[in-house]
Order: sequence, then C-alpha cells, then structure tokens
Amino acid sequence: MTVDSCFSPALFPYYELKDAHRIIVIVDIFRASTTLCAAFAAGVKSIRTVASVEEARLAKQNGFLVGAERNTERCDFADFGNSPKEYSSDKIKGKELVFTTTNGTQALDMALSESGSEIIIGAFVNLSSVAEYCSTRNKDVLVLCAGWNNRVNIEDALFAGALIENMEKEKYSISSDAARIAYDMWKASKTDLRSYLNRSEHISRLFRHGLDSDIDFCLNIDTVNVLPIYDRLQESLRL
Amino acid sequence: MTVDSCFSPALFPYYELKDAHRIIVIVDIFRASTTLCAAFAAGVKSIRTVASVEEARLAKQNGFLVGAERNTERCDFADFGNSPKEYSSDKIKGKELVFTTTNGTQALDMALSESGSEIIIGAFVNLSSVAEYCSTRNKDVLVLCAGWNNRVNIEDALFAGALIENMEKEKYSISSDAARIAYDMWKASKTDLRSYLNRSEHISRLFRHGLDSDIDFCLNIDTVNVLPIYDRLQESLRL
Repeated sequence: MTVDSCFSPALFPYYELKDAHRIIVIVDIFRASTTLCAAFAAGVKSIRTVASVEEARLAKQNGFLVGAERNTERCDFADFGNSPKEYSSDKIKGKELVFTTTNGTQALDMALSESGSEIIIGAFVNLSSVAEYCSTRNKDVLVLCAGWNNRVNIEDALFAGALIENMEKEKYSISSDAARIAYDMWKASKTDLRSYLNRSEHISRLFRHGLDSDIDFCLNIDTVNVLPIYDRLQESLRL
Repeated sequence: MTVDSCFSPALFPYYELKDAHRIIVIVDIFRASTTLCAAFAAGVKSIRTVASVEEARLAKQNGFLVGAERNTERCDFADFGNSPKEYSSDKIKGKELVFTTTNGTQALDMALSESGSEIIIGAFVNLSSVAEYCSTRNKDVLVLCAGWNNRVNIEDALFAGALIENMEKEKYSISSDAARIAYDMWKASKTDLRSYLNRSEHISRLFRHGLDSDIDFCLNIDTVNVLPIYDRLQESLRL
C-alpha cells in the first residue's frame, strides 16, 4: 500500500489514476475540512457541498440551511460562514446542510472524477479517525490539499505529513516527492505547529479577519471522533 | 523586493502576474537547466528551446545541432541527449543549438506568457551567477520549478530554497507558503544534498538509466560562471 499527497487541486490531474480504487482524503485545514468535521460532531445529518455561490443561494431559497464563505467571509445570504464554531448542535442537529467555501469544496469536486475511489474528509481535529479508517480499508491513500486559490499552502501539506506518518507506521510506503516533502515538514513542525504556522500566508489572513480562535481550533488534534465520507449516490457527505 | 517559488508549470497560472516586470528563474536540476548551463559554459552561441519532439526533428532536418530527450533518454535523431557531459566544447563552441526535454522546455514556454518579465536559467551549477544577477536588477524574483510531468519534485524545490536564502541576505522578503517550504527544505538539506536527494523519485529514475555521474554533476554548486538569459526577439537563450 502507498500513501501520496497532492498539493493543489490544479495538480490533481497529474496525480489522478483513472482506474484507481483508493481513498482520497480532502483537506482544507483553514477551515473547510475542519468545519465539516465540527458540523458532523455537532450532529448534522448530511452535508451537500456545492462549488458555486449561486448554487448555495438557490439552496437557501429552497429552504436548506446553508454554510457559504468566500475569501474568509460569510456570504450575506447564508446561515453560517466557514468558522467551525458556528455549527452548534442546537442549530444543526439532524439537519441537512448545503455548504460552499473558497477552496475546500472545489477540491472535493476535482476528486469526484476519480470514480472508483472513496472520498473522505480529513483535518487535524479528526486525524486519528482518518488514519484508522484508511488502515482498515487496505487501499492506497492520496491526500488532496485544497490549497488557496490553487496555490500551495503550508497547513494542508502539514496535515498530509501527519497522515503519512500514521500510515508509515502501518507499513504504507511513501510514493512521491510531494509526500516526502510533506512528511519532512510535519516532522520539523509537529512539536510546535502554531509557531511553525505563524509564518504562513493564511494565518495572517485569518488574523486580519479577527479569527484567531479559529486558528487554535483548527490546529487541535483529535478533538472529534467523526469521519465524513462522500456518498456518491446521495451526492453528500455523511458519517 | 520579494522572492517566490512555484512548484510546477501547472501551477504557474496561479502565481502568474500578467503585468509583472520581474525575473522568472526556470529550474530543472535533473537535468535540463544544468545541461543548458553546461552548454553555455562550453561555448555554445545560442540555444533555441522547443516544446515538441517534432519541432526538434524538423530542426535537425534543417541542419541544426539538436539536443532532444524524452523520459530520460536521447531521441534517436538527436546529436545530444540531456546529459550535461555530452555538450563538450569541441562539438558545440560557437554553434546554434535547438533543444527539447521532457520538463524543462515546457516550463520556459509557460513563463513566456508573462510578457513583461525576464526569463533566466538557474541550476546549482550557476547558483551564484543567478543570485548576483537578480540582486543587481532590483526586481521581484519567481523560481519556476519544472517538476516531473507537472508533479512536484524535491530537487527543483531545493534550488528554489537555495536561491531564496541568497536573496534573503539581500533583504528580499519571502512572499508565499511555497517559498517558505522551499527555504525550509534547503536549510534542512544543504549540508548533505546528495543524502537528502537519495530518497527522491528522479534519483532512482536516473540510477536505473546508469546516469549516476550526472547526478553528482547536477548537484555541484557554482561550477560554471554563466547565466543563460532568454532573448525574446531572437527567441533563444544567450549569455
């Protein structure tokens, strides 16, 4: 078994294996994949991710609860933005949610083209749930980083490195230079993720928007015990 | 002034600045950018890079000296492959060469779309020449890594890191997460590049083709004192 990482949705076509039956882990640490995990931990029934703001607006008009964000801010028509703390149990338990964000949902859309592969959602908050699921499935694993507008970012690569470390313990082999880079980054930073990430682009962006407490939330490891899995028939994420 | 890096030609559109007047450093350590430097050090007059094997074949039919490689091997019609050692002074001094390789020439083609920017060729063998040129031009710098079939590779990112270290000494600021990743990789590996790279994908590929001595050649720093610069009018590289 192998574990690999792809640093941007725009690179996915070059890591894609049309006939693969593997697990693709979608990661967008700041904040979409963390928020999805938080919403499931708070009891949401299902989440349908959509790529465009227009689709999200239409869903709102049709009575759905909607989480929608662009460039760090909540869309004005939406019930929620992209902060994991907004998705409290009293508001979403048992509900069906529609969700769109700047980068995360696009990454999931890219992965759908690999039709034989499973798609799951990974974040630091559910790292062990992801690792345990992967190791029981006996399949190759690819971490697809959402990045920022298709540019490489540090935080998603670090999650890839963290998962690679877990999978290596399960005798998975590291299958590309990108995976090796991610693993080395993780080993160099894991004892103090926050300091390492203070130099990243997105941290400053979140800071400017007063979202400092979100940063800490997103960097906590294993705070929830959920694994959102994409259901191709229902076209939504479920547990 | 800023210094940035882009890890794959496929990511260039997301790092591209249409109105920029900066320096784009094309790097393909194994082996195109190293080979281009070696050819200029051996006295070649100019090198016209072409993206396709067909264009290279046509150039050969029209009497040009041709260097052409695909997937580590010399194309059968070509005078040279992509080994820096083939380009000896007795064969190429004063000559005009046409050149195509799997990854390097495609990267250069991508960079051409940023029409206000200068394009130069960088490799470990001419690192100081690149750094000195950049620091005298007073422009932002972007290192464009050729990668391997648009996948990220370690060796090109390491060169980006090495150049970033040089530019930081000249008070350039690091402008993206990708640049920071490259710089960290370089700092972790620079005392023993070869060991660090022994785990890379391309080293194994070169090994399988018996090109071990090329690897050492490509990792030597500052062995030549040339800076190939793309001349947009002449559509070729010159000193």
